[in-house]
Amino acid sequence: MVTTMRQQMEAFTHDLRDRICSAFEALDTAKFEQTAWKREGGGGGGVMSVMRGRVFEKVGVNCSSVWGDLDAEMAAKLHSASTAFYATGISLVAHMANPMVPAVHMNVRYLEMDRWWFGGGTDLTPYYPFEEDVRDFHGALKGACDAHDPAYYPRLKQWCDEYFFLPHRNEPRGVGGIFFDYLNDRPAEALFAFVKDVGEAFLRVYPMIVARRKDLPHTPAQREYQLQRRGRYVEFNLIYDRGTLFGLKTKGDVEAILMSLPPVVTWK
Amino acid sequence: MVTTMRQQMEAFTHDLRDRICSAFEALDTAKFEQTAWKREGGGGGGVMSVMRGRVFEKVGVNCSSVWGDLDAEMAAKLHSASTAFYATGISLVAHMANPMVPAVHMNVRYLEMDRWWFGGGTDLTPYYPFEEDVRDFHGALKGACDAHDPAYYPRLKQWCDEYFFLPHRNEPRGVGGIFFDYLNDRPAEALFAFVKDVGEAFLRVYPMIVARRKDLPHTPAQREYQLQRRGRYVEFNLIYDRGTLFGLKTKGDVEAILMSLPPVVTWK
Repeated sequence: MVTTMRQQMEAFTHDLRDRICSAFEALDTAKFEQTAWKREGGGGGGVMSVMRGRVFEKVGVNCSSVWGDLDAEMAAKLHSASTAFYATGISLVAHMANPMVPAVHMNVRYLEMDRWWFGGGTDLTPYYPFEEDVRDFHGALKGACDAHDPAYYPRLKQWCDEYFFLPHRNEPRGVGGIFFDYLNDRPAEALFAFVKDVGEAFLRVYPMIVARRKDLPHTPAQREYQLQRRGRYVEFNLIYDRGTLFGLKTKGDVEAILMSLPPVVTWK
Repeated sequence: MVTTMRQQMEAFTHDLRDRICSAFEALDTAKFEQTAWKREGGGGGGVMSVMRGRVFEKVGVNCSSVWGDLDAEMAAKLHSASTAFYATGISLVAHMANPMVPAVHMNVRYLEMDRWWFGGGTDLTPYYPFEEDVRDFHGALKGACDAHDPAYYPRLKQWCDEYFFLPHRNEPRGVGGIFFDYLNDRPAEALFAFVKDVGEAFLRVYPMIVARRKDLPHTPAQREYQLQRRGRYVEFNLIYDRGTLFGLKTKGDVEAILMSLPPVVTWK
């Protein structure tokens, strides 16, 4: 039996999702709830897992596999000569109750259009940054990158800094991480091994950061600052984020796409 | 002394702003605070007036006059062969403390590029709609329209319904109103008279709606529903709104442009 990259990627992302959800539940008192969705007027769908807890104020993990035809404009944006597409991946955003715990985003995806490619990354958004957290987060990602190509980490770190940037505020979104797209410069199996290591690095480092910050004392003013800064997360995701735009354009499930938005936000 | 349309429009919008702010202050216990801003790296600027009160949870009124050069892409979007632009106008968004009071947006603007035109409109977003409010709001706008052209109201109402629509949710933003852009089908003085009447109609009808709803009792669940529905306002303004995009692209003041965002929002 031949296992395609689509199948391997689906199997990996589902397994990663299950292990991430278990790790997060172990840090909280709530449980994830899963909702399956089907793509309106097209092929595929996904499963959204959401937990609203005392530590994880709102965390969403979405696994989806979708296919069909893009409009010509969207296909051109993806540099594809053909409009037929297949996409599978996992996407995660966590907004935390305690302002001392950084918010986080992680995504890995595999696409097929006129060619195949991998994309993804993970980036950390602390409101009160601890140098130790930033160092550990970047250290884990550097480890995952270096095992595959010593050029990856500096390149993908810079790509992340450039991508998660709010031009209208001239501000980075957080303390970065790694970001990559259109990666197809080596055999698919080799890149699949790389994105797996990115997922594993995330699973190793982020729960550890949550564990050491979740019970730190904080003031109402610090909580208020967190709610205000979350506005930047909303601005980025709705104005600039490619994944959000892609999801909305391909008529993905709105709740699954916008699960990245924080539970409570203020604009002052 | 020759008075240009730029000068007339500026004088009108400043006067309208002052009268709107007085009318809103008369309904609340707070006062507007004004902040002047200059356009970074370009000509012009504006004055943002913001009140955070007990009735008006957050209301922003921005008067601006800006000029310079657009990039070619933005100029093409505005159907202009030249990139030089001048724009002046007033923009207002009110988010109300009591969920029984509708949120509102109003804007009138005058632009000069390879030609001149007027744009603007006003639309109402109730969370718990009262038929009387919807009828009065639309009635005031129909009156303003009909005095100039009986074809305006049906056309501009439909334009509003089409513009203030969230495709990703397949939902209108609220109960509509009127919307218009690129209006230059009659002499500038005649269209100026029309946009003045739109502004006056707004000033007549919206404070009246606020006055009759602001003290209505409501439950915490109704307040929570309002905060959730405000998410749609954020989604529309950041994903679709032309004025927001224009402002960010022309390096307007970020706080003035994003003053339209609600003070507190939830995504559940």
